[in-house]
Amino acid sequence: MFLTNFEFPRLIVILNDESSRIKIQKKILSLSTPDYHSYLKPKIKHFVHRKPEYMSILVVGSVAYDGIETPFGKVDRILGGSATYISLTASYFQKPMNLVGVVGNDFSDEDIQRFKDKEIDIDGLQIDESGKTFFWKGRYHFDLNNRDTLDTQLNVFEHFNPVIPEKYRNSKIICLGNIAPALQGKVLDQVNNPDLVILDTMNFWIEGDREELMRTLNRVDVLIINDSEARELSGEPNLVKASDKIRNMGPKILIIKKGEHGALLFTNSSIFSAPAYPIIDIFDPTGAGDTFLGGFAGWLGRSGDLSDDNFRRAVIYGSAMASFCVEKFGPERLFDLTPTEIADRYTEFRALSAIPLQSDKSF
Amino acid sequence: MFLTNFEFPRLIVILNDESSRIKIQKKILSLSTPDYHSYLKPKIKHFVHRKPEYMSILVVGSVAYDGIETPFGKVDRILGGSATYISLTASYFQKPMNLVGVVGNDFSDEDIQRFKDKEIDIDGLQIDESGKTFFWKGRYHFDLNNRDTLDTQLNVFEHFNPVIPEKYRNSKIICLGNIAPALQGKVLDQVNNPDLVILDTMNFWIEGDREELMRTLNRVDVLIINDSEARELSGEPNLVKASDKIRNMGPKILIIKKGEHGALLFTNSSIFSAPAYPIIDIFDPTGAGDTFLGGFAGWLGRSGDLSDDNFRRAVIYGSAMASFCVEKFGPERLFDLTPTEIADRYTEFRALSAIPLQSDKSF
Repeated sequence: MFLTNFEFPRLIVILNDESSRIKIQKKILSLSTPDYHSYLKPKIKHFVHRKPEYMSILVVGSVAYDGIETPFGKVDRILGGSATYISLTASYFQKPMNLVGVVGNDFSDEDIQRFKDKEIDIDGLQIDESGKTFFWKGRYHFDLNNRDTLDTQLNVFEHFNPVIPEKYRNSKIICLGNIAPALQGKVLDQVNNPDLVILDTMNFWIEGDREELMRTLNRVDVLIINDSEARELSGEPNLVKASDKIRNMGPKILIIKKGEHGALLFTNSSIFSAPAYPIIDIFDPTGAGDTFLGGFAGWLGRSGDLSDDNFRRAVIYGSAMASFCVEKFGPERLFDLTPTEIADRYTEFRALSAIPLQSDKSF
Repeated sequence: MFLTNFEFPRLIVILNDESSRIKIQKKILSLSTPDYHSYLKPKIKHFVHRKPEYMSILVVGSVAYDGIETPFGKVDRILGGSATYISLTASYFQKPMNLVGVVGNDFSDEDIQRFKDKEIDIDGLQIDESGKTFFWKGRYHFDLNNRDTLDTQLNVFEHFNPVIPEKYRNSKIICLGNIAPALQGKVLDQVNNPDLVILDTMNFWIEGDREELMRTLNRVDVLIINDSEARELSGEPNLVKASDKIRNMGPKILIIKKGEHGALLFTNSSIFSAPAYPIIDIFDPTGAGDTFLGGFAGWLGRSGDLSDDNFRRAVIYGSAMASFCVEKFGPERLFDLTPTEIADRYTEFRALSAIPLQSDKSF
């Protein structure tokens, strides 16, 4: 008996033997629904109604070069951008990853290779020879909670028009990195019925383009923001009340990141409080939020499970990946993680918030 | 076969029958260790090496009247004080509770009865006829995180000299509410080898009497403070580093309360991140910290278990009790809780931070 998984129809099909699995997988691509009933049904032992085991992921956002100063060091130019962090992180969970972004004539072969090494599909990465890659430079304060932007050169990113290649359009999970809400909307116009749309935003758009942001929010399943953004977006200091208001704007699932205090996950049925990893020395916080999104989406794609329980696991994977990201400059730590490191960090997170079962003295 | 529990020696003794349990309990009080071996040993089926099942609790702190204004209402005069909140809360976990404090000639019979109703032993509650009970009046800001003190009348509390009645001196858990460190030290001078000393302090003593506080800290097992106090006491913004410094000052166990972000428990072997209950409407935060201590100590006393796992449970019981406290004015909510309510709230806390077991797609 074998478990297999067809994109069409959305069923796990348990078959009688392995050979029919392979034959059917080839055949299924050309089947319409009536064919399926005549051809496949006799061979099927029984069905398990659930999502496919893997869900393909599309990431749209910025690809950039960053200059970073922290109290612990300085780097003049390192690969950055939201789509970079999201796709590098998610690539640990499933392959291939579909990436859409834009870079300029200065983007190095070495950095192209970094994506290829992780089997990230970059056919959707536009190379605009008319200018340079988006550049951002910032300096973190001693407490690492605040930073000053020293330089922003939008360059080719200024006129970024996300074009989703045909082969990406059936992606099941869409990750919209922090770009203009209007561009996020354009991406959604081009994809075919994704199972989950995840949006990351920033106070910049809440303040500067609220109307467009509200339109995009209405098309989104999961919103990831930090606590001050949640308060600003909702006008509500209490995060539980804020979440009710925001979830009425569209996203049925809301994740509020609270930095050193962990994260909250609000769904229709429950609230989940995720711990933060007690990091003694944060080296560089750049990209931690995008890395969270990458781990969150990556786990959902890998597991193909959109249950509330699995969203909790996804929040922990996101937190675990973000805790790695801050250990080195920029995305450096994301180049060479191992599955064992990820599994161990996940286990540490579980241990951190585990409440032992009751004893015989319980009420 | 009966489980019983002797204060001397510190063993759970499983006996052959109930009648010997009663005889031995009477006899044991007069036994020295050699007698124990000759008399008790033949009657014992086997030993279970662990702490006694119940640990008696002594609470020392203020008993006061409070005037409270919150954005939701106002009360001119209500029972208050750290020892009040701690003992009322702990009384839900085990009886009797031993209370030491001082009140004045205005302390009402009705409030005396409140302690008696909860079987709190108030033989150690001094009634000083020379003056009035400690009075505090405060007003909370709209966000409830800050408050202004409008009036403080120390009254008889100004010359409070804690005298521990003979029958309280073998208490196993000592709860030192927020009083002057020198007085906390005086309490410790009078008790006989307690198993656990728990201290609650406030920035007032960190700033005003640091030297005496350091002396007291050195004699304490568990310190409970909030995050800003931890940073102030240690001079360290990072709470993990702060905990290392503070635990070097004496207390091997440190609990850092973070308000709406939950609490952290630091022991020799692990860090525990406890969630906060997502309360939509806090009515009055007065006494929440003392109530946390009462629930924490109460659970430890009830379970008689000082393992790391059980400290985690105790933090959750403390958090659960504090989440009740803030639902009404002053200690009102602590007058009529039921065991079922406490058990249910504890279960809600577990659900809040529960991370489901891994799925088959795990790393």
